[in-house]
Amino acid sequence: MSSLTHFDDQGQAHMVDVSAKPATLRVAVAQGCIRMSPDTLRTIVQGMAGKGDVLGVARIAAIQGAKRTADLIPLCHPLPLSKVAVELECLDTLPGVVCRVTAQTVGPTGVEMEALTAVQVGLLTIYDMCKAMDRGMTITDVGLLEKRGGRSGHWQREADTAPPRP
Amino acid sequence: MSSLTHFDDQGQAHMVDVSAKPATLRVAVAQGCIRMSPDTLRTIVQGMAGKGDVLGVARIAAIQGAKRTADLIPLCHPLPLSKVAVELECLDTLPGVVCRVTAQTVGPTGVEMEALTAVQVGLLTIYDMCKAMDRGMTITDVGLLEKRGGRSGHWQREADTAPPRP
Amino acid sequence: MSSLTHFDDQGQAHMVDVSAKPATLRVAVAQGCIRMSPDTLRTIVQGMAGKGDVLGVARIAAIQGAKRTADLIPLCHPLPLSKVAVELECLDTLPGVVCRVTAQTVGPTGVEMEALTAVQVGLLTIYDMCKAMDRGMTITDVGLLEKRGGRSGHWQREADTAPPRP
Amino acid sequence: MSSLTHFDDQGQAHMVDVSAKPATLRVAVAQGCIRMSPDTLRTIVQGMAGKGDVLGVARIAAIQGAKRTADLIPLCHPLPLSKVAVELECLDTLPGVVCRVTAQTVGPTGVEMEALTAVQVGLLTIYDMCKAMDRGMTITDVGLLEKRGGRSGHWQREADTAPPRP
Amino acid sequence: MSSLTHFDDQGQAHMVDVSAKPATLRVAVAQGCIRMSPDTLRTIVQGMAGKGDVLGVARIAAIQGAKRTADLIPLCHPLPLSKVAVELECLDTLPGVVCRVTAQTVGPTGVEMEALTAVQVGLLTIYDMCKAMDRGMTITDVGLLEKRGGRSGHWQREADTAPPRP
Amino acid sequence: MSSLTHFDDQGQAHMVDVSAKPATLRVAVAQGCIRMSPDTLRTIVQGMAGKGDVLGVARIAAIQGAKRTADLIPLCHPLPLSKVAVELECLDTLPGVVCRVTAQTVGPTGVEMEALTAVQVGLLTIYDMCKAMDRGMTITDVGLLEKRGGRSGHWQREADTAPPRP
Repeated sequence: MSSLTHFDDQGQAHMVDVSAKPATLRVAVAQGCIRMSPDTLRTIVQGMAGKGDVLGVARIAAIQGAKRTADLIPLCHPLPLSKVAVELECLDTLPGVVCRVTAQTVGPTGVEMEALTAVQVGLLTIYDMCKAMDRGMTITDVGLLEKRGGRSGHWQREADTAPPRP
Repeated sequence: MSSLTHFDDQGQAHMVDVSAKPATLRVAVAQGCIRMSPDTLRTIVQGMAGKGDVLGVARIAAIQGAKRTADLIPLCHPLPLSKVAVELECLDTLPGVVCRVTAQTVGPTGVEMEALTAVQVGLLTIYDMCKAMDRGMTITDVGLLEKRGGRSGHWQREADTAPPRP
Repeated sequence: MSSLTHFDDQGQAHMVDVSAKPATLRVAVAQGCIRMSPDTLRTIVQGMAGKGDVLGVARIAAIQGAKRTADLIPLCHPLPLSKVAVELECLDTLPGVVCRVTAQTVGPTGVEMEALTAVQVGLLTIYDMCKAMDRGMTITDVGLLEKRGGRSGHWQREADTAPPRP
Repeated sequence: MSSLTHFDDQGQAHMVDVSAKPATLRVAVAQGCIRMSPDTLRTIVQGMAGKGDVLGVARIAAIQGAKRTADLIPLCHPLPLSKVAVELECLDTLPGVVCRVTAQTVGPTGVEMEALTAVQVGLLTIYDMCKAMDRGMTITDVGLLEKRGGRSGHWQREADTAPPRP
Repeated sequence: MSSLTHFDDQGQAHMVDVSAKPATLRVAVAQGCIRMSPDTLRTIVQGMAGKGDVLGVARIAAIQGAKRTADLIPLCHPLPLSKVAVELECLDTLPGVVCRVTAQTVGPTGVEMEALTAVQVGLLTIYDMCKAMDRGMTITDVGLLEKRGGRSGHWQREADTAPPRP
Repeated sequence: MSSLTHFDDQGQAHMVDVSAKPATLRVAVAQGCIRMSPDTLRTIVQGMAGKGDVLGVARIAAIQGAKRTADLIPLCHPLPLSKVAVELECLDTLPGVVCRVTAQTVGPTGVEMEALTAVQVGLLTIYDMCKAMDRGMTITDVGLLEKRGGRSGHWQREADTAPPRP
């Protein structure tokens, strides 16, 4: 069971003890996509001109979602985020939208979950706003791109397993 | 702008008026997967035998996530869920876990977002518990399978666009 | 497994389907106590005269706690409370404070958990405010006194198993 | 009024100033029980074999409850928990379940309230899942067993006032 | 004490019993302003052209704030909002921004608090985004403009006591 | 766009990076008023004698509101409050109530938003409790009085722009 750190020797779930870990800078970058019909994407792109700003709403939802991570993920430690930045890009080649989030904290634990949760909430918010015209949209390729800081150090997704980048 | 109902005539985001819509039974089924290394999947499967119950924790997180939907998705109406059921299955062919959620309410609006949010929180929780052994896991193919009730009636994802089913 | 309705045929936790249950008036009364040293109780009683109103703070916490029930208890249905009333009484014979909460809703499910959660949050709040002078306080005899409404009808705790009443 | 630190000189509730207190390791252990009929306990014990895992659900609820403490208890400082561990044991002698929670933080205030809130939410969750078969269950003997860290140092409940230990 | 319905005969706060009140359409319109320097207002107006959309962020915050009302206001009943619309207008004559919110529900209680809370959260969000350039901004003239539905019927603010309207 | 720090070079909202800022003591004092009819104020003042303690409830709501700030204000950093104190005073000259809040933290960002949010939630709570007798109450003159700590140092509202002080 040693490989699943969120469970103790008896196999019971717990919030892992990080009391003795030093507070250091932690960075995580996560990304995901929502695939949709070309028509739906066109409607979103038109909204970027100022009327019906789907991406603006999704960005705010993603940032707020990052702050709710410890509420949502049972064994996550609460942590004071020191940065959340959200990039949203429309890609005709998907067609759809790519959401990439960078999260940072200065603390004893990583911020991967915060970056991933922000991506998911951002993409769900796009789904919500476009679902009346396109119920078949799919959220896909959500994963960690990179993390820095902490004992495990720098980690980067290998290029050939990476989700599409804009 | 008529196609984006979450924005008014001036293109401003709003929570759509559903005051006049009758309360009827609404059902939504959503699904998604998390892909991982065969080793990680094996560890999860072993945990199902009683020690380190990753799927049990994810199920609870998904149900609680469904209840937080209106908190997370800015333009979602709050609604009293009358059922949430979560199926989690380990699939060697992915390899990974499929999460399928059925949500119901009796109300004036649909429960697609509740079902989708539950799927996402469930999959994120699996990511959280396994990330120490496998940072490259990917959440993918998250979408609506079916919805019933309301003015738009029955909708079902076409077979050839469907995410993998166990 | 039929006796545990919160688990399905496979033994998996779910939020039970109440879609077909009619909305009727539901009432629940719950109660609990916090036992403390006579000195601590005296300090609380003196505060009732206007300075240091421990019970006033606990009452507000209990009411707000009732509203958080579905957030806290994983398989609880969210429901719109239509009444919450909190009685707090100082009892020299404990010595300590008795907290009794009546909760009501008009809906398809009962409000026992809302009444019980309110009692617990109210008593925890008293503990918080008095803990600097008395760490050994004990919260005890928290249970349901009565429930009305719903298919199971009227239920009342038998006198000889009841927690102390003021 | 000096004995109630949560009230100022005028007797008004406030969140106490801890700005000047150093961040040190704080540990708290709290415990409580839920008493039930022998039949109910037997059903829970059977569920531990893999079907209907009442204790697994309660454990997750307790951990998440610890993270909601400052939301629930009005004058509690928000704090970043660095560990939460939950032990649940079935005791035929009660009959019932004992819940013991250890909480830790590195901060200027204690974690007693987090440990106690986790115990209460865990026990309430057991009540919720078993209430259809046993409405008369009682939550009892909830108290602090031990605390370490901070100016007040080590505190341990005296043996003869202690709630039952498994 | 009859004039303060949120307190019972003993003067204790409670959540008023609305179990017997019928569910009818309730509408409330609330409004408020934030006054600022002409420079700050100019910066906001420039952002409306697409870069730095202060009002877009404030609108989302206001809508989400409406949904948190029962969490924030202790004696408020939780209710399922059926509409929230937010108008934000820049007024050179203040100089500043006017925020007007219309909220609706179909239920036994009014939505005044939801409309007012949305106004306040929207204006606070504007303050937050502009505070680095203008700490002296003032939120002012926040009040109810109109309410409809319920036993007390239609109420409208008298013209001469009204806050400035755009 | 440099003047609006909550937006990046592309004009997109983000949570500003404070990872490199040192944790120092931050203090903020905010204030606001609610104006009402003389009758309503008289009812509140009578309640201070022990029956119907409007101000006691508002004080608790204000403190809890301070803790919800990062949930409500999208681009606010979450921070561990180390002090919240709320003063409420009845003023015949308004007539109405003045609410003043002092908030503190030891961290990399200021606590202005926490102090302001607490003021607003406190005043909204007074509105809620008195609205049945006086719908025309107005919340007004809500602003920052003073802040200390951080790179921008000490800031104090100029006397002639200040809201009324008791």
